[in-house]
Formats: sequence, structure tokens, C-alpha cells
Amino acid sequence: MKVAVLMGSDSDLETVQGTLDVLKEFGVPCEARVLSAHRTPRELRAYLEKCPAQVFVAAAGGAAHLAGVIAAETIRPVIALPVQGKSLNGLDSLLSMVQMPPGVPVACVGVGASRNAGLLAVQILALSDPSLSAALEKFKQAQAEGVIRKDSALQQKLKK
Amino acid sequence: MKVAVLMGSDSDLETVQGTLDVLKEFGVPCEARVLSAHRTPRELRAYLEKCPAQVFVAAAGGAAHLAGVIAAETIRPVIALPVQGKSLNGLDSLLSMVQMPPGVPVACVGVGASRNAGLLAVQILALSDPSLSAALEKFKQAQAEGVIRKDSALQQKLKK
Amino acid sequence: MKVAVLMGSDSDLETVQGTLDVLKEFGVPCEARVLSAHRTPRELRAYLEKCPAQVFVAAAGGAAHLAGVIAAETIRPVIALPVQGKSLNGLDSLLSMVQMPPGVPVACVGVGASRNAGLLAVQILALSDPSLSAALEKFKQAQAEGVIRKDSALQQKLKK
Amino acid sequence: MKVAVLMGSDSDLETVQGTLDVLKEFGVPCEARVLSAHRTPRELRAYLEKCPAQVFVAAAGGAAHLAGVIAAETIRPVIALPVQGKSLNGLDSLLSMVQMPPGVPVACVGVGASRNAGLLAVQILALSDPSLSAALEKFKQAQAEGVIRKDSALQQKLKK
Amino acid sequence: MKVAVLMGSDSDLETVQGTLDVLKEFGVPCEARVLSAHRTPRELRAYLEKCPAQVFVAAAGGAAHLAGVIAAETIRPVIALPVQGKSLNGLDSLLSMVQMPPGVPVACVGVGASRNAGLLAVQILALSDPSLSAALEKFKQAQAEGVIRKDSALQQKLKK
Amino acid sequence: MKVAVLMGSDSDLETVQGTLDVLKEFGVPCEARVLSAHRTPRELRAYLEKCPAQVFVAAAGGAAHLAGVIAAETIRPVIALPVQGKSLNGLDSLLSMVQMPPGVPVACVGVGASRNAGLLAVQILALSDPSLSAALEKFKQAQAEGVIRKDSALQQKLKK
Amino acid sequence: MKVAVLMGSDSDLETVQGTLDVLKEFGVPCEARVLSAHRTPRELRAYLEKCPAQVFVAAAGGAAHLAGVIAAETIRPVIALPVQGKSLNGLDSLLSMVQMPPGVPVACVGVGASRNAGLLAVQILALSDPSLSAALEKFKQAQAEGVIRKDSALQQKLKK
Amino acid sequence: MKVAVLMGSDSDLETVQGTLDVLKEFGVPCEARVLSAHRTPRELRAYLEKCPAQVFVAAAGGAAHLAGVIAAETIRPVIALPVQGKSLNGLDSLLSMVQMPPGVPVACVGVGASRNAGLLAVQILALSDPSLSAALEKFKQAQAEGVIRKDSALQQKLKK
Repeated sequence: MKVAVLMGSDSDLETVQGTLDVLKEFGVPCEARVLSAHRTPRELRAYLEKCPAQVFVAAAGGAAHLAGVIAAETIRPVIALPVQGKSLNGLDSLLSMVQMPPGVPVACVGVGASRNAGLLAVQILALSDPSLSAALEKFKQAQAEGVIRKDSALQQKLKK
Repeated sequence: MKVAVLMGSDSDLETVQGTLDVLKEFGVPCEARVLSAHRTPRELRAYLEKCPAQVFVAAAGGAAHLAGVIAAETIRPVIALPVQGKSLNGLDSLLSMVQMPPGVPVACVGVGASRNAGLLAVQILALSDPSLSAALEKFKQAQAEGVIRKDSALQQKLKK
Repeated sequence: MKVAVLMGSDSDLETVQGTLDVLKEFGVPCEARVLSAHRTPRELRAYLEKCPAQVFVAAAGGAAHLAGVIAAETIRPVIALPVQGKSLNGLDSLLSMVQMPPGVPVACVGVGASRNAGLLAVQILALSDPSLSAALEKFKQAQAEGVIRKDSALQQKLKK
Repeated sequence: MKVAVLMGSDSDLETVQGTLDVLKEFGVPCEARVLSAHRTPRELRAYLEKCPAQVFVAAAGGAAHLAGVIAAETIRPVIALPVQGKSLNGLDSLLSMVQMPPGVPVACVGVGASRNAGLLAVQILALSDPSLSAALEKFKQAQAEGVIRKDSALQQKLKK
Repeated sequence: MKVAVLMGSDSDLETVQGTLDVLKEFGVPCEARVLSAHRTPRELRAYLEKCPAQVFVAAAGGAAHLAGVIAAETIRPVIALPVQGKSLNGLDSLLSMVQMPPGVPVACVGVGASRNAGLLAVQILALSDPSLSAALEKFKQAQAEGVIRKDSALQQKLKK
Repeated sequence: MKVAVLMGSDSDLETVQGTLDVLKEFGVPCEARVLSAHRTPRELRAYLEKCPAQVFVAAAGGAAHLAGVIAAETIRPVIALPVQGKSLNGLDSLLSMVQMPPGVPVACVGVGASRNAGLLAVQILALSDPSLSAALEKFKQAQAEGVIRKDSALQQKLKK
Repeated sequence: MKVAVLMGSDSDLETVQGTLDVLKEFGVPCEARVLSAHRTPRELRAYLEKCPAQVFVAAAGGAAHLAGVIAAETIRPVIALPVQGKSLNGLDSLLSMVQMPPGVPVACVGVGASRNAGLLAVQILALSDPSLSAALEKFKQAQAEGVIRKDSALQQKLKK
Repeated sequence: MKVAVLMGSDSDLETVQGTLDVLKEFGVPCEARVLSAHRTPRELRAYLEKCPAQVFVAAAGGAAHLAGVIAAETIRPVIALPVQGKSLNGLDSLLSMVQMPPGVPVACVGVGASRNAGLLAVQILALSDPSLSAALEKFKQAQAEGVIRKDSALQQKLKK
């Protein structure tokens, strides 16, 4: 298992799915867990003590402390994925993840940017895995081609 | 010891002083500790396991997780005191403290409102301590008189 | 009656219900009242003068003054529950509750965090009521188990 | 006395001075008082019950409830003057004043806009006082001339 | 005609209706006009030059200049009613109305607070119209009674 | 005269100077005027009626209506330059300039971005003035070289 | 081809349509392209190198870099059209477009203000195209008449 | 060379210094370059094409596109370091960095969090460098001890 994808509540699964999809697309072994920094602190620590993952992805909303609490316990990279709640448009989740104090960094992606959380994990792992590097290059190429195809489709559409 | 006043960094002491002053004024036994949710998670937990305090005050800035992390470990009331950082005007500290997920409340006061953090602790303790209740009534009275005196001073000043 | 749950408008009842549910779950005698700081100031004061509650919960939206106005009249703890309005995503309710001036604290919970308002009231009362303490410990345990069950369900779901 | 200028704290006097200056310039009888919605609610009400002012100006910062609390007690116009605090750039003062619930309006001016608070009071009084109307017309004219003079000064300066 | 209610676009009518309703309830002669500071500046000025209204209400959204442009042309009170647009939650409308420069005040109410805009106009007119004063006192009383009735209804509901 | 640089107050000159400097550097004939949308609406209109400028730059702070008011009177491009005030960090100036209603655009630059306001005016004029185009290409080249020189200086500094 | 309308994703087309409609109404030759600063940087540069457009319109959401990246490569005016995303209400798109560094301006319109982006392009082109000037004058006139008609319709409606 | 630290302007060096210090403390070979996404796009691309760094740190302010533009050209991890500007408190830099579109992630740290940018780079490199892992463990330990020492110093101070 290379990437541990943790979410503070199972209601975050909808957001987190994009991360899991990306990791699956790249064939990166991962596991998804519901573990709350506030409701299951003991279970979270027990998990972190044994977890062999190289990279963590932590998804949470509101006063989103999950990524910071993981970063407090490990020296491995922690990717923070802010989940938008009902009020305040995701600004609370974003700020409570990204503004970590000196000495304990997390790597924050955009509000709800679940695919990017997965891709960032892949980029980090690819530094020591040439097959992932190759897959990322291919993905980047395919992504560019996708935009080009959409542009062509737009040209067709506008001609009519 | 009745109130444990925790701060994430000794740079928060300037803010926290107001809390300590209030507790001292009311004769509430307290202690102040520098314990970081992110830099000394183990020491923080060890402290919380033995801490006999009835109320916690947690002061932190930025992605301020200290109050939430304490609330995860105790069923006693945790007062959150957001400390303003260099950027974002304290909005980050406020939101990462007040927006706690369901099931794990903290009692948040205003950004930098250190005296109010202390007073709220006293109010909570006063529910089962009639002498504190009396002291609070007296404080409230004195506070009103202070405003009245300032009003009188203003009348004098404006007459000139 | 231990907790008085006040709301500025009966449209806040939907939000406040979570507070009432929690208090009922913990068997804490409470009452819910519609009393507006702005529309029924006299009735509010009359109520506060006689109200035997040990803790107040005040729910309001927009320029939400209810908690502050109660705090001006009592030395007992006032829990502020900001209710999200149509504009500004609840930022107005939050700031007009949490940013109280020195000397008159309120204990603010998150925007719409009604269950947390109830739990905070229970935590405060539990300081002098061992049976509530025990119930809170049990709640915390059950809550952790709920997360663990959701995690197990997720594992089953992901296996498929 | 036509206009009552109330401030929540004597530290607001610096801001409020502009209001007093304007009222003096227009010869409108006024008085300035330090009366806090939160610290002297009783004195504030006692004052409001007898106050013969036709218009109120209420200056306050943070969770600025003063204007709303006055508006709850009177049917006369209440001008809200938000005072900028140390954190949050005045957004808290502004939102907790301007976002009043239906049925209890206040007339909010900009953050720290003390001269405008005074002018708005004069405009309201001028509706039934032709000499104030004339003075306002003259003021408006003089103000325009002031801008024109500054423009001329700029032309001189730029020529050099 | 006492109050001129101007809106920048006929799409603002939905918001403005509350203002018109209040003025009708109080029997205040008014007229509603669609006049844009940006799209019909000439017609707006022509209107303002002849308009006998004592109070203006200006409703607009986005970069909402209507109130300010009216205030530039008159010495009579201008009530600004910010209308919420599709983006930015009404913060743009609010700030572009309330933050007027020194010398040219407007009286801003909350975002979408159309009934309050009407009531503020009535309060201003009531200063020289005892029958409006009496109506306002009656309205305030009825409003309080409405809250009390809702409180009674709540008590009934909760008993079940 | 090609560009008219208008400011709402002579206190904006400090900000506007960057615009004037750029226009001078490019040899674009311009004039700077203090004309307020709110304090000298008549003079502003009189000016606009005769002004032969091809592009307008409007600098203002707070509820910054100057650019919008100019755009209401002309079909020529209006560049809006938001000036930061004492409160709200420039967010008020920015939103009240950029969020113009459909049909009346302005071209907004960043808060206090005075040099960019000037450059944008030059870019617009350069579309029909090959010598300005050439000067812009040269400026862009020199600007790049400036960054490269600063990079070289940094390399020297870091070697030590 | 006079105006190149670029969008970072084909999901922005819904927003961009207003720009294309305006350009078509004014008979300005334009083309719309899907080209991403982040996903097709090479194709974007290749396009920009040959693109004969006099004005660019760049529509993008989130961390919206498209306008800035175009402005880095050209000396022709670049109009930035921020597209609102799912979180943060468009504030992210707006700030990441409008706050360009000194030396590289873009001309930003409001969030989702697609018609204004088109009109601003037409205004710029009209400086050297008298027929476009005439069309803009006609548009402005028709727009004013539209408001006047809506005002008349309102008068009819209110009479009933 | 393992880490390339790029800044959009040499005025960002003050912020970036913390990143360089951390990398030096951990003995990670790095280089710092002034390269602007907007002012030297060509030089930036030429640099990126040859740059052997495994991790990039990009520091920029305002509409901070540097990190995104690098991420468009590489599959290696890009750490975004938002630099606070004069207006808007760093919110602009943060949002224009963190809110990247799907497919092109950056790893954002807090506003001005330069030491964290360096530490995150070290954490990423440590995944395939046991000596860096050991150094990070030691750093984490030393950091905890530093907090403990500050706590002891506080205890001494408070005893007096």
C-alpha cells in the first residue's frame, strides 16, 4: 500500500472518490479509511503508527484538522483536501488546512480538488518510480489531447 | 488547579496574558502551558490524560487546531481563543477554531479576545461556586461603573 | 429547567432543533423560546430576569445580537449559535456573535452547529453532575464506534 | 438636543469626533455619550427612555450591537457607524451593524465614516428645517468648490 | 409623493417589492421607477431634478452605484438597498453602497433588506408626521405581539 | 490629449502617479484631473462632454463609482484603478469597480496597480499606433532583461 | 479575425456565449477556442504566436491564469473574464485574474460578465473603427430605451 | 541539484529565504532563481526544460501564477508558496495558487510559510533518501524539545 486516503466522515466519500479513481487509474495501491481527528483520535493514531503508506491524503471539511493531526505524527508528505461544507463556501476548510504553523507542513490542494490530490500523490511517488513517471507523461499528453479534441468539437459546433 | 491555559507557541503568550490576568483577578487556580497540537502531540496528550482542570483555554493562530485536538480527548469544556497571525487578519484562526464538526464542540471567543476567554472560564466555574458568582456580579457592576465614569469624563472633556 | 434555548425568530427552529434533540438525548431539562433582541426586547429582559437556567443557548442570524444581549444581562454562560441567512453565507451571523467586546464573553459554536451548541451546554452542566459526565463519556465512546462502523462499511463497499 | 451620539467605548471617541464636528459645523444641538449595549444595558435603556433626540448615531466595533439595541427601543432613525477593530479590518463591525433583521432597520454608513454619520443626521433633520437645508446646499456647493480648487492645485503642480 | 423607490433594473423588482409593501401599509405616497445610473444616467438626472420626494430608496446589485449617484445630486436622505447577485453573495453590492466617501452619505440597510428600507423611510418621515409616528409605534407593538404569538405556537408545538 | 486620468480625490494622486509616469515614459499625451463622481458630478459631466481622450483611467477608493459613472457617459474604454482605503484592504474598491452591470463595462486592474492602468491604456492606443507598439515591445524586452539582471544579482549574492 | 475568445475548458462555454453573442451582434469577426494555460501550454503558445487578433478575451475559473499567461506573450490588450466555480463564489477566479503584477496588465471585467467582456473588446476596436463607434452609440441608445420601456411596463403593472 | 526555488520577483527573496535556510539545514542541494511567469515566460520555460530538480518551490504574490505555470510544464511536484502583497492580506496570492484546475495540481503551503515550503520539499525527497528521513525525524524531535524548553522557560517566568 502506497497511499492512505483518510476522510474525517463518510460523507466526505463523494469528494474523495476522485482521489481513489486517480490512484486506481495509475495502479497505485491505496486504501481509504474513515478516521476522524476529533471523533476517533485514538484509532487514528493507532492507524498512523502502523500505516506503511508513503503519502497520506486527508479530506475534511469545516475546522478541518485531519491533515494537520496526521502531519503531527509523521514525517511523510500529507496532502490536504479541503471539503466544502454548507456554510462559508469552503473558505473555512481551506484556511484551516493550508495555514499550518512553521515546522509542520501539509501540501494543500484546492477546495474539493479530489483528482488533484490523487495526482499530487502520484507525482510524489513517481520521483522514485520510473513507470509512474511514464504514466504521468502519458496522462499529461492525453489530457492535452482531450482539450484539443474539445476545441475541435467546439469549432464544429460553432460552424453550424 | 481549575483552568488549564494552553498555547501552541510561546509567541502566543502576549495574547494569552489577558486570560491569565482575569483568572488571577478572580483567584481561580490555573496554569499556563506551551503545548503544540502539531509539534508536541505526545506531550499534549500526556498532559491531557492527567490534567485535572475543569475548563481548558486553548490559544493558537493560523490553522489553529489546538482547541479541537483537546476537545477530541476530553468531555470538559474547551474555550478556543483565536490568535491573529501576519496574514488574513485572524480569519484563518477564527474559522479553524469555531467551525468544529458535529459531536466535538469548542466554545470560541473573538480573535485575540483573551480577557473574554478568562471570563468565560470563570462563568462556567461559577455555576458551582457561589463565591465566583458573587465576584462576577461585582465585576459586572464595576465594569458598568467604569463605563459610567468614562462617560462622565467625556462630558467634562466636551464641556471645555 | 437547566438550559434555556432562545431563538430570534421561529424560522430559526429548524436549526435549533438539533440543540433540543441533544438536550433531550441527555435528559437535560430545557425550554425553547422565541424571543427577539430587536423585536421583543422587553419580553426578553422580563424572561431573563426570572429565568432559572444555568446555561443559555442563543440562535440568531444576520446581525445576530441575541447572544450578546443576553450576555449583557447575566453572568451565566451564553452559547451563541449563528444561523446562516440568505446572503453572505453565515459570515455575518458568525462575526456578529463571536466578536464580543472585552468583558462580555459569549461561547460561540460554528455556523448552524446546533448539536454542538447542545453538547457544549451538557459539557458545562456535567462539571457539577457526575451522571451527565458519565453520559458524555458514553456518547463520546458511541460516537467513536459510529465512525468505526462507518469505516467498516466503507471497507465492505470498496471491496466490491 | 436633536442628535444623540452614542459610543460603546470611549476608545471610539477618536472615530466619533468627525460626527461631532459635522454636527457642530451645522449648528445642530447634540450630545455625545459613552453607553455600552453590553456593559451598561440598564443605563443605556434609562437614557433612551428619556432621550429627546430625533436621530441617534451609534458607533461601535467588533460585534457591534449598539445601533441594533437602540433601534429595538425607539422608532426614531438610528444611524450605525461601524468602528474598525484590530482584527478582520472592520468587516465584523460592518456586518454586525448593517445586517439587521426585518422590522428593525438601522441606517448604516461606511466603516469609520464618522463625518458621513453626522451629515446623514443633518440631512434627515433638514427635511423639516429649511435653514439646515440651506446649509446643506451651501456645504455641497463648498465641497464641490473644494474639489475644484484641489484640481486647480494639481494642474499647477503638474505644470512644473 | 414622499418616497421615490428607484431600482437599477426591473429584475430588482422582486427585492424592491418589500419596500413598496411597507410604504403602502403605512399609507406613504410613493412611486417606483426603473432608472439606471449606468444605462440611463440622463433620464435619472432629469428625474432627480424634478422629483419632489423627501426620501429616496435606491436598490441595485453588483457594482451598485445607484444610491451614490443619487446622493451626488441631492441633499435629501438616500436609503441604499443592496441586491444580491449571482456571485459573491451580495458582498459586492453591500460594499459598493455602504462605503461612500466623506461628504456624500447614504443610509445603507442589509443585503436584500427591502422591508427595512421602507421602514427606515417611514421612520425618517415620521419625525415630522405624528400620524406616521403613531403608526410606527403600533407596528412595533404588533411586531412584538407577532413574536409572542409565534413563541406561544412553539410552546404548543413542543408540548406535543 | 489621448488619455484622461481622473481621480476622485487628490489623496489618490500618490497612487495615480504610477499611471502618469508610464504615460510619460511612452510619450502619450495625457492630463490628470481631480473630479469626483459624488462631489462634483456636474463638473465631471461637463468635462466628459468635451474631453477628447480616447481612453479614460479612473482611480477611486471605497465605494468607488468614478469609473462606472464615466462608463455611463461614454463609449470609449474606461480603465478602473481601485485605490486601497483604510478599512477592508481594498476589497471594497475592487468590487465596486469590477462588478459592473451588463451593458456598461469597465476594464479593471488590480488594487493600487497604477502602472498597469497606464500600460493598459498604452496597449489599447498601440492598436492603431505602430510607434507605441514598437515601444511596448521594447518595454517588454527591457522588463524581461530587468528580471534577468535581478536573477544574476541574486546568483552573485547567494554565492557569497 | 479581430477578437480571439479563449476559454480554459469547454465547460466555460456557457459563460463565454454572452461574449460571442455580443461580438456577433456588432459584426466583429472573432473565433472561440478551448486552450488551457495549464493543460495545453504548448498549443496555447503556438496559437498566440500566429494569432492575428487585436484583442484577446480569456475566460477561466478557479486559479484562473489564462489571461495572465496570454498577457505574458503579447502586447495587445487581454480582457479577463472570471468564471465562477463551485466553491468560493467566484472570488478565487476574480482575484487570480485582476491582481496582475506590475508590467503585465489585464483588463478584468466582473465575475461571469461575459457580455461586458465582448462590449469592452468592441469599445477598444471602435477607437479606430468609426462604424463600430456608431454601432456602440446606437447600442447605448437602445439600451437606455430598453430601460425606459421596462420602467413604463412597471408603471403599467403598478397601476393595476 | 534537487530543489529549484523560483520566485516571481527579487522582492520575494525576503519570504523565500526561509525555504533556502531549511534546504541548507538539511543539506539538500538547491538553487534559487528569479524567473517570472509573466515577465520572463521564455526564460522560465528554457529553465524548466533543462532543470534537473526533483521538486520545485514557486513563490509569488498577487495573481500568483508561477506555480501553476511550472506545473503546466512538468510532472514533478510543484510546491506553491503564496507571498502576501500590500492589499487583500494574502488572500489573492493564496487563492490564485491553491485553486488549480483538475489535472494540474500544485502543493500549496500557507501564506508566507517559507520554512514549510522547504520542509515539504525535504519530506518528498526523504521518501527515497533514508538519510533525509533520519534528519527529518531528528528535526521533529528537536522541534518538540524546543517547544518543551519554551514551556519550561514559561513555567520559570510565571513563578516569578
